[in-house]
Amino acid sequence: MLIVQKYGGTSVGDVDRIRSVARRCLEARAAGHDLVVVVSAMAGETNRLLGLTRQVFGASAPSEREQDVVVATGEQVSVGLLALAIQAAGGKAVSLLGHQVKIVTDGTFSRARIKSIDGGRIFAALGRGEIAVVAGFQGTDEHGNVTTLGRGGSDTTAVALAAALGAGACEIYTDVDGVYTTDPAICPAARKLDRVSYEEMLELSSLGAKVLQIRSVEFAMKYRVPLWVRSSFGRDPGTLVCEEDEAMEDVLVSGIAHDRNEAKIAIRRVPDVPGVAAKILTPLAEADVVVDMIVQNVSQDGHTDLTFTVGRSDLEKATAIVKEAVEPLGVRKVDTDDEVAKVSIVGVGMRNHSGVASKMFQTLAAEGINVLMISTSEIKISCVIHEKYVELAVRALHAAFGLDAPAPVLAVAAGRG
Amino acid sequence: MLIVQKYGGTSVGDVDRIRSVARRCLEARAAGHDLVVVVSAMAGETNRLLGLTRQVFGASAPSEREQDVVVATGEQVSVGLLALAIQAAGGKAVSLLGHQVKIVTDGTFSRARIKSIDGGRIFAALGRGEIAVVAGFQGTDEHGNVTTLGRGGSDTTAVALAAALGAGACEIYTDVDGVYTTDPAICPAARKLDRVSYEEMLELSSLGAKVLQIRSVEFAMKYRVPLWVRSSFGRDPGTLVCEEDEAMEDVLVSGIAHDRNEAKIAIRRVPDVPGVAAKILTPLAEADVVVDMIVQNVSQDGHTDLTFTVGRSDLEKATAIVKEAVEPLGVRKVDTDDEVAKVSIVGVGMRNHSGVASKMFQTLAAEGINVLMISTSEIKISCVIHEKYVELAVRALHAAFGLDAPAPVLAVAAGRG
Repeated sequence: MLIVQKYGGTSVGDVDRIRSVARRCLEARAAGHDLVVVVSAMAGETNRLLGLTRQVFGASAPSEREQDVVVATGEQVSVGLLALAIQAAGGKAVSLLGHQVKIVTDGTFSRARIKSIDGGRIFAALGRGEIAVVAGFQGTDEHGNVTTLGRGGSDTTAVALAAALGAGACEIYTDVDGVYTTDPAICPAARKLDRVSYEEMLELSSLGAKVLQIRSVEFAMKYRVPLWVRSSFGRDPGTLVCEEDEAMEDVLVSGIAHDRNEAKIAIRRVPDVPGVAAKILTPLAEADVVVDMIVQNVSQDGHTDLTFTVGRSDLEKATAIVKEAVEPLGVRKVDTDDEVAKVSIVGVGMRNHSGVASKMFQTLAAEGINVLMISTSEIKISCVIHEKYVELAVRALHAAFGLDAPAPVLAVAAGRG
Repeated sequence: MLIVQKYGGTSVGDVDRIRSVARRCLEARAAGHDLVVVVSAMAGETNRLLGLTRQVFGASAPSEREQDVVVATGEQVSVGLLALAIQAAGGKAVSLLGHQVKIVTDGTFSRARIKSIDGGRIFAALGRGEIAVVAGFQGTDEHGNVTTLGRGGSDTTAVALAAALGAGACEIYTDVDGVYTTDPAICPAARKLDRVSYEEMLELSSLGAKVLQIRSVEFAMKYRVPLWVRSSFGRDPGTLVCEEDEAMEDVLVSGIAHDRNEAKIAIRRVPDVPGVAAKILTPLAEADVVVDMIVQNVSQDGHTDLTFTVGRSDLEKATAIVKEAVEPLGVRKVDTDDEVAKVSIVGVGMRNHSGVASKMFQTLAAEGINVLMISTSEIKISCVIHEKYVELAVRALHAAFGLDAPAPVLAVAAGRG
């Protein structure tokens, strides 16, 4: 079977760890698999390189093209060293860079998107019995400029390669041993999931779980790549991210996510006429401010309240833009709050079960937690609450939805179904 | 005028120095020149990266392909940072890597030779008013593998670019302010040369002067690129390496070089029949041992002595090979000596003046220095002597050939001519 393995920065953090990754690669070869390995920069290296570019450029934003040129070297060092380590351990390996594999992206420096991959050179290496060690995070645009894929981009490189090469599995090795029901740092009762569906993983990633880059999950879902998340330090099989099946649907809630990077902007008494929301939100989009949850209340006397959240670091910029945008509308009152956070429950089982939302609100109410905003999708419910209640809310919801139970998740589901 | 400037590792050794290089680049632009800048890795970076590859691979020699992948990142970081620094100082710049400029080399990893350069992308950048910042030391072979050009390879990148682009001048910025009559660390009376011919520079580089990579001088000579060597820290015009002219021919000796990286192998009583030297030297070449001076004595009773020098680190390997090669010839005696060094005098004026060699031997004899081997070319004479006499020999020759004089070299030459 053709397997794509991806090792993160902590997994290749020093020479000993690189040697240990090499041994793992050779085990997969010894088991008869063809192997493509994607690696990130050694832990800390990307930040060191970014620091250099900032030192040179000072406070203002440096050219993203040149920053990508500098930062992409981190992965180049890693692939060379891992290929050497595999050779030192008696194996055959060849390193391949973004421009050599022809990982073509769009031209959006620092957060480019992969458009195509040419598998020819990788298949040639595999045909010679070599392990193909491919640099994660990097590509080139159609003019041959170096691009990078943004934080966590090596996950996306791995999944995109698995899709392009038709790999049987994509294994993401990291410093945790799988995907958890929630953040174990907040909730000691958190349990590792054996399996989770693409859609759930996508929601969990979008909602603040840091295990996988969102884009990598989108790729995996689109091309149906079976995706394993496991630890590079242990032997636990980890979590399989895969297509939804019936057993999953019996689970009401699979995971609980939280995100503190939230700030709320409330605009009071906006004239309730068509096009008003667009007038306010368009200048934000043009200024690259990502607006997350948007809530608009029922109209009263021809006016409504419009509330939305943005990333906390964008609050100041967003507030200024909003104030300018609403002035011609006669709006005088814009309230902001940067002490909010978002807590979300995710599960494909919600589709077929009612009462999940009310159970969530009851649970929060029982703890005296006020809900400031609510947003729902087919498989998730998010509540914005005061930041100080985050840990309490996560633990209460974790217990309320039966995730504390020590038995495997499928057994719990069967008990409730 | 189109100018190619090259800055070495110490010139871009930290962020402040990179900023200072950026200012120099902008001065050249302000003077109306089109500018291509070649940079090396930040001082110490190449050794750090080589250290990583050795740590991974242990004592044996790592794959040179993968070593090149790792080491080439040093220059990639430098070009990104210098382009950013030029932008931060208000200029326009774009970094370009070996694969982007299509610096195509042969496939000899770690010491590749440039075969072709595609100037298109550089001219496009210059046409947009940008300073083209090109990574030195690196290229790709015809299959797109990353290659490096060996120590000092950025000099060669700069001169090759100047030749390919038809530049009006190539300026090599380094941590010394030009080419000296000899090593000032050994001989305080050493003087900076205002001008030196390509051929003299080639001999000086070959004989151990570390100012320029030999290959870069060959390129400059072949394509008649006027080459300036100057300090990146001062304002001295430096030394011009250029075509020979009549004034140069009036100077008997332009410079004195020395090289301690020498070891001597003497094979006694070799049968003096055709093909013997080839039988001994061919296996050395096949083992990548570079043989420098070769001396064969006049035959006596059908036997001769064959003596040659190799790099000191190759002595052990070379001795083993030689012993195996001479055994079938019935030779039993192979002497080695690793305490020798080479002292050379160089000057195009030798062509038209007799007595230079005898003056050299007299000078050494007057100091009690025994000459172990002699080798001459049209414009240089080299003597192998015991290592302990190197400093004495250099100083004595420097004085004897009038190089100590404080006046400029051309005035000295006129006085003697």
